[in-house]
Amino acid sequence: MRIRLYVDAPLAAGTPVDASDEHAHYLLNVMRRGAGDEVLLFNGRDGEWQARIQVPAKKRVRFDLARQTRVQKNEPDVWVAFAPVKRIEVLAEKVSELGVAALLPVFTRRTDITRVNTARLRANAVEAAEQCDRLTVPAVHDAVKFDALIAAWPNTRTLYFLDETGGGAPIAEAIKAADPKVPVGFLTGPEGGFEQTELDALRQLPFAKPVGLGPRLLRAETAAIAAVACWQALQGDWVSAPHR
Amino acid sequence: MRIRLYVDAPLAAGTPVDASDEHAHYLLNVMRRGAGDEVLLFNGRDGEWQARIQVPAKKRVRFDLARQTRVQKNEPDVWVAFAPVKRIEVLAEKVSELGVAALLPVFTRRTDITRVNTARLRANAVEAAEQCDRLTVPAVHDAVKFDALIAAWPNTRTLYFLDETGGGAPIAEAIKAADPKVPVGFLTGPEGGFEQTELDALRQLPFAKPVGLGPRLLRAETAAIAAVACWQALQGDWVSAPHR
Repeated sequence: MRIRLYVDAPLAAGTPVDASDEHAHYLLNVMRRGAGDEVLLFNGRDGEWQARIQVPAKKRVRFDLARQTRVQKNEPDVWVAFAPVKRIEVLAEKVSELGVAALLPVFTRRTDITRVNTARLRANAVEAAEQCDRLTVPAVHDAVKFDALIAAWPNTRTLYFLDETGGGAPIAEAIKAADPKVPVGFLTGPEGGFEQTELDALRQLPFAKPVGLGPRLLRAETAAIAAVACWQALQGDWVSAPHR
Repeated sequence: MRIRLYVDAPLAAGTPVDASDEHAHYLLNVMRRGAGDEVLLFNGRDGEWQARIQVPAKKRVRFDLARQTRVQKNEPDVWVAFAPVKRIEVLAEKVSELGVAALLPVFTRRTDITRVNTARLRANAVEAAEQCDRLTVPAVHDAVKFDALIAAWPNTRTLYFLDETGGGAPIAEAIKAADPKVPVGFLTGPEGGFEQTELDALRQLPFAKPVGLGPRLLRAETAAIAAVACWQALQGDWVSAPHR
């Protein structure tokens, strides 16, 4: 099994990288790798590198960089803002695999969950990025209240909100009509949906557009995953090859 | 909280329905409902009905049908065939919410899992259908081997297989080019991908078409969920209102 790890350090030819204690433990004890074994490394900035494990001391791992296997390139600029749900980790993992640039947990008025473990979500996002061959890891923002989210939303980024009351355009229609150069984000509500005051506030934002995902009532994490998949297929990097 | 249940019995005005022991237990003990409380019922054939709980004896529940709330109508005809994965229940739940008509577990040559609990998958599908307001429950087929799946596949149904080797068309392009009157199914492989012999066999089928979901390596369940979402958005019942 191929091992691919996200690291903080700069990656460049001739510059060895000391592994974190966590990575050393994972490689030596969990995956039973040793000196001379190969791994892939990426840091979100310097592309992907093939590296060889060195074990300079007991429980220590150093990576000797062999060659760059992929150059860094831009990835799709799509955000997902979401009311935290019970299965928040499924949501974080799946949208990270699907290529979102940022995850923004948001407490709407009907959100039951009052605390988000941002560190855990970051770990989910890193693991998904490692497994799915991304060259970046999505940014995981600290959870904020609904009003703070929309106050800070960049007015140059379209905000598609998943409107469960039926007021939204079919998602494919909305995406196909959009300028592909404008970055986007999706916002999904909690199981109980948005409050009317929240929908009213969203409708007054010039950059916000209601969209719908058909006649069925989707769980919040399903809606977020489905919306990102549709966007990638229609305007993201699923439009052109290479594909798999 | 609204309760919506899938039942076997015919649903018609003036014909009471005896609840199963399981539903009686769920309503009386888990959800603490009693005589006079309302539920919604559907059976996949007779639309959706509002019913009132009667408790004719201890631990017994009867449903008195009040009125039909929705008439039965056709739902999108999309299947999902998939190599069983560790998180098969996430897959079953999500694609059921997204409206698939049938789930077909299939053992490909690189599938690690050797047994599928079909009853459990059916329960996942029923629960998802109850929650998401579907009027049907997806058919859950018994798991078969890859060769049996493709031998029995109807040649009038397009089979989109998720080709991780990069040979597929972008999914939106493939779906947009397809005749909307032709029913479809998706096929996703196991974590290790299809074997070359399987890809070769698929490529020889006149009704099979390779599709791709972009440059990242998606987990098997993510690929199945994303593919169905794209199809619903482009050719299924997300194309037209009502939406939510």
